[in-house]
Amino acid sequence: MAGIIVISRQFGSAGRTIGKETAKRLGIPCYDREIIEQVAENSGFAKEYIENQGEYASHKTWLGRALESANRFDGMSNQDKIWVEQRKIILGFASSPCVIVGRCADYILDGMDGVLKVFIHADDKFRAERIVREYGEQTDKPEKRLKDKDKRRAAYYKKYTETEWGVAANYHIALDSGKLGIEKCVDILTDIYKSGL
Amino acid sequence: MAGIIVISRQFGSAGRTIGKETAKRLGIPCYDREIIEQVAENSGFAKEYIENQGEYASHKTWLGRALESANRFDGMSNQDKIWVEQRKIILGFASSPCVIVGRCADYILDGMDGVLKVFIHADDKFRAERIVREYGEQTDKPEKRLKDKDKRRAAYYKKYTETEWGVAANYHIALDSGKLGIEKCVDILTDIYKSGL
Repeated sequence: MAGIIVISRQFGSAGRTIGKETAKRLGIPCYDREIIEQVAENSGFAKEYIENQGEYASHKTWLGRALESANRFDGMSNQDKIWVEQRKIILGFASSPCVIVGRCADYILDGMDGVLKVFIHADDKFRAERIVREYGEQTDKPEKRLKDKDKRRAAYYKKYTETEWGVAANYHIALDSGKLGIEKCVDILTDIYKSGL
Repeated sequence: MAGIIVISRQFGSAGRTIGKETAKRLGIPCYDREIIEQVAENSGFAKEYIENQGEYASHKTWLGRALESANRFDGMSNQDKIWVEQRKIILGFASSPCVIVGRCADYILDGMDGVLKVFIHADDKFRAERIVREYGEQTDKPEKRLKDKDKRRAAYYKKYTETEWGVAANYHIALDSGKLGIEKCVDILTDIYKSGL
């Protein structure tokens, strides 16, 4: 097993772009949407549903809780089923060199040789501007969207890994893409990869 | 203001060595023990006392609390006085290019232009081996020494900065020196510095 980069990222920090660019430079695949597509194919769930349930904890409303409970026909929630499916797919991808973005891949591949665990983050200003540019304006203000998404990603991460999201010691390298620039982040990761993981 | 690298580090992670080496390559000074020496000169406190009080929260024993309370003649504990003195000295050093190791310099210089905030960490095995090699065997096992020192550094950081120590988003770059190697960490920091902060 050698040569896997796993990227965790704050919403709007360009973590996905950095993953794609690094993979391109290294001539290896980058898996992001592909994970969702495979889960959809294997499970029958809709892609949008998987995207939401596969990386975000539910909103803690009574309706959310009721729906989650109603979905448990066989003791597993839909979210649990998607977790299991995602895990299988990520382990499969990790049998050859690649970049994997999000979905707790850092935890799933923890302890394997030849894996570089990366966290990408940036300050709110950089991320707010970026999400408006990338995903457009929405009813909620960008700062609220950032806070909400990060909170739900952290809660999802905690639920399935029992460790804290975004703690520096859990990653081999953490980079502020706003301060360093996307290009420099790609340079650094490409260079580390080429030096051998 | 331009060209300051501030390094926070887990105990035994080689953060100080990385700071010294990076500074040497860049031809700028690295301040670490120098901060203690200046505080000693300005305050009259002993160096060993400053080293302990200037970066570590006290052990929470009744004796520790009694001593802390007994030290408050003018409403400030000795630790508070050392904090104020350290802060002044760090701001002084930061008027020209340098590397500063520890002592909440990341917080003290937060928001200034031209500052790169770094966190260095490594797994327990790497650090335990390193502290035995660097500081020798002691009564406490190395794993206990790591845990104790990190806990007290984190508590000190929290007390004076009201933020969490070791959270990736608080640093521009966080590096696992065990995984990446000391030399590679120095390469990365030198390269970022040369690209302009």
